[in-house]
Amino acid sequence: MRFNELITYLNKGNAKLIEFHIGDNPEIFSGGSIDKALPEQVSFLEKGSPYKKELSVSKAGVILLPKEEELISIAKQKGISWAAFKDPRLAFAETLTLLTPKNTAPKEIHPKAIIKEGVQIGKNVSIGANAYVGENSIIGSDCIIHPGVVIYEKVSISKGSELHANCVIHPSTAIGENCVIHSNAVVGSEGFGFVPTSNGWFKMPQTGVVVIEDYVEIGCNSTIDRPAVGETRIGAGTKIDNLVQIGHGVITGKGCAMASQVGIAGGAQLGDGVILAGQVGVGNRVKVGDGVIASSKCGIHADIQPGEVVSGFPAISNRLWLRCSSHFKNLPEIAKALKEIKRHTSQ
Amino acid sequence: MRFNELITYLNKGNAKLIEFHIGDNPEIFSGGSIDKALPEQVSFLEKGSPYKKELSVSKAGVILLPKEEELISIAKQKGISWAAFKDPRLAFAETLTLLTPKNTAPKEIHPKAIIKEGVQIGKNVSIGANAYVGENSIIGSDCIIHPGVVIYEKVSISKGSELHANCVIHPSTAIGENCVIHSNAVVGSEGFGFVPTSNGWFKMPQTGVVVIEDYVEIGCNSTIDRPAVGETRIGAGTKIDNLVQIGHGVITGKGCAMASQVGIAGGAQLGDGVILAGQVGVGNRVKVGDGVIASSKCGIHADIQPGEVVSGFPAISNRLWLRCSSHFKNLPEIAKALKEIKRHTSQ
Amino acid sequence: MRFNELITYLNKGNAKLIEFHIGDNPEIFSGGSIDKALPEQVSFLEKGSPYKKELSVSKAGVILLPKEEELISIAKQKGISWAAFKDPRLAFAETLTLLTPKNTAPKEIHPKAIIKEGVQIGKNVSIGANAYVGENSIIGSDCIIHPGVVIYEKVSISKGSELHANCVIHPSTAIGENCVIHSNAVVGSEGFGFVPTSNGWFKMPQTGVVVIEDYVEIGCNSTIDRPAVGETRIGAGTKIDNLVQIGHGVITGKGCAMASQVGIAGGAQLGDGVILAGQVGVGNRVKVGDGVIASSKCGIHADIQPGEVVSGFPAISNRLWLRCSSHFKNLPEIAKALKEIKRHTSQ
Repeated sequence: MRFNELITYLNKGNAKLIEFHIGDNPEIFSGGSIDKALPEQVSFLEKGSPYKKELSVSKAGVILLPKEEELISIAKQKGISWAAFKDPRLAFAETLTLLTPKNTAPKEIHPKAIIKEGVQIGKNVSIGANAYVGENSIIGSDCIIHPGVVIYEKVSISKGSELHANCVIHPSTAIGENCVIHSNAVVGSEGFGFVPTSNGWFKMPQTGVVVIEDYVEIGCNSTIDRPAVGETRIGAGTKIDNLVQIGHGVITGKGCAMASQVGIAGGAQLGDGVILAGQVGVGNRVKVGDGVIASSKCGIHADIQPGEVVSGFPAISNRLWLRCSSHFKNLPEIAKALKEIKRHTSQ
Repeated sequence: MRFNELITYLNKGNAKLIEFHIGDNPEIFSGGSIDKALPEQVSFLEKGSPYKKELSVSKAGVILLPKEEELISIAKQKGISWAAFKDPRLAFAETLTLLTPKNTAPKEIHPKAIIKEGVQIGKNVSIGANAYVGENSIIGSDCIIHPGVVIYEKVSISKGSELHANCVIHPSTAIGENCVIHSNAVVGSEGFGFVPTSNGWFKMPQTGVVVIEDYVEIGCNSTIDRPAVGETRIGAGTKIDNLVQIGHGVITGKGCAMASQVGIAGGAQLGDGVILAGQVGVGNRVKVGDGVIASSKCGIHADIQPGEVVSGFPAISNRLWLRCSSHFKNLPEIAKALKEIKRHTSQ
Repeated sequence: MRFNELITYLNKGNAKLIEFHIGDNPEIFSGGSIDKALPEQVSFLEKGSPYKKELSVSKAGVILLPKEEELISIAKQKGISWAAFKDPRLAFAETLTLLTPKNTAPKEIHPKAIIKEGVQIGKNVSIGANAYVGENSIIGSDCIIHPGVVIYEKVSISKGSELHANCVIHPSTAIGENCVIHSNAVVGSEGFGFVPTSNGWFKMPQTGVVVIEDYVEIGCNSTIDRPAVGETRIGAGTKIDNLVQIGHGVITGKGCAMASQVGIAGGAQLGDGVILAGQVGVGNRVKVGDGVIASSKCGIHADIQPGEVVSGFPAISNRLWLRCSSHFKNLPEIAKALKEIKRHTSQ
């Protein structure tokens, strides 16, 4: 694709094209990082990027930039093709989306897929070899079920969703439109519910269901449990990374993002747009307000008000935590100073 | 099922029925949470529950309660059907167990299951499509092996155990009676044993085995490794949640419970009835005494005496940790006060 | 195998045989721990081992020891067969390697494996039942692909590698020679890349690839993501335990070791020989120098210089962290002392 065609396309996108220079109007085929991109590749820099030096020597055919004078001046000096955007990262994402060839694999139900009785399958569906679809499950149009996926009975998967190899969907789970379930994820498995008795743990039957709303992604090897009663629900547009645990009865709002190895205990509730960084834990039945951001390894034991940015364990405001953490390093000096003062004052 | 039939059943259970009111003797079909239950559903409240308001407006047909005057008085005022128990949560679990239809799927070995030579299979066993059972493995009576499960060679699985889709059992693993291995769990894989040498890591062969005693549950995507020599052993009645790592040579007592994302390093030993909350870590060869409770994210580096409740990292007594954590938030003030005192005393 | 044959073998190994006593020259068949080994088993003790008492009463037929007078004197007194090495653990690993029977399972492509068009398969390859190899993938000689493995299209796996049951390899991943991918691991899946927009998260296509160099092991249920552009690369000889997350674009050096539940965020770089203990987290784009050791649960947010040993969160030097942690326990006393001093000085 020629750069001018790309510009036409991006001008209709959401990244907000500000200014550009067609230059040699190079043909580009794919994307690359600023330091490794080739002349037939497009690259990008973000606002405040530390890679200005790399820009000077980059061999990329086209570079997408923020509207920053210094960067544009370097680009001009190099004489390369460039374009400036309000959101150059988004422009790059839109570009890669355009450049990436669509999956043109023939949509077919592999003869070695196992389809049980009462299954309904929409139009233009692909079901891979050795995939298994249990009794009375429903697969919407345009879905792609990769090899080795196991779908238990009475599951419904709405149109346009993709299930990657070897993931497992348990009974009565409902998955919305245009979702992606990544490899080896498990959705709808029994919640961890046991009642202590004098004879040991008595199992609480997990009779509820998991509901995954539209445009949700669930990462590889992540697990989303169903509850004893009611439902576990993942709000529309929420993105979940790999190795995340969502306990039974958790409800998340729309557009949340959870990085890898996050764990959310049973009954917790997340508002809309909550962002949890890697290895964060959220306790049982805790309520996390809209737009909360929790930094990595944070442990949230108590409700968090909307819009808060929290850190540490137990979680406190990020600003306070940064200050406390920097003092933590001085604890030996604090203890020593205190000892000296005590000796001094007791004299 | 009519409420009076349920009462007859629960009276023989372990939840200790104290008092009840049959009312309209409604027919109930399933369970629901106190705020969402319908007239054909049963719900419950625990001792000290914060959901008293929800009880007033609940539409549940039957409510199981603790023996608390205020709650019973609300129930009486509503005129609904209710019963009070010493352990209402257990009563609810027993009720759901009764109401949940038994799996009546025909027990059969699917024609597309792969059964290798020398495999012994008991009576009334179900083996799903594309499941694989390796040479000389033994599957006890009444076991259910779901689709896509891979059982390597020389594995033994005792009667009544259930293996969910796509879990993997490695060679020579022994699984007891009435266990549940959840989807994508891996049991009996090679422990992480490498010896540093001048040529890099030299692999320690993992020639031991994993033994899972009776009534154990192992959560989705959890991993239990076999050791170099000897065994890794999970004590009877122990319940393990999703995404838990049990290292090579770990021995756990009976009736332990480990929440999601717990990690136990090689050679650690847990006593009976140990409870580890989410994301807890236990170090190499550490001994954790009977009945120890470790709160979430706790890091246990050294032996813990029986009955202790520990928190934090490195783990200390929960009481002390709570106090220390509350002072941690004050570190900036502590540092400031100290500075002022020093200035004052040095004048 | 007779002990004298073992000695001949180990003398050519890397554990550095120092001294030995043939004694009855027992025949040994396998390994055991010092407290449980039988007369037909070999056991070992490490330098500074706390198991001296166990040595006195051990029934092991042969014991491999460090060159420590006390231990050798006990062995002599017992009159058993023993040998002393510079690295007795390595000697034990070499012994187990020798004693462990080689996998002699016939190398065959199971008739129920699915091999798509354009796949190239080397000599002496085993592909298990229900394994799936996608279009144009390449499987090198002597590889073992266990049942249920799913290999997407355009993957290359070099000679001598083993892929355990139900692991998944995504498109265009390159796996080197003599690697082991354990059960349910996922390699080459889409990185977690989403750009925030006013309409929610916009997906950054993940067009890069994952490269696994030679002699790498990747643990059960671990996940290694591919990046938007460029590559994620695991250096030769690196060993990765279970449930580890390697984010998109991470580059690790050679001979690293990562224990269970480690998480490495996107774009981070590890030098050679980095050791990360259990549950460690490494932040986005952080650079960790050669030979760094991070203790368990450590959170690395900023670059770490080569050779450092770090602990805590945020990570600081291990020595300092040990001191700070011990003072953390005294925070209530520190606060109390400060209060008293303030009262005193304000009088």
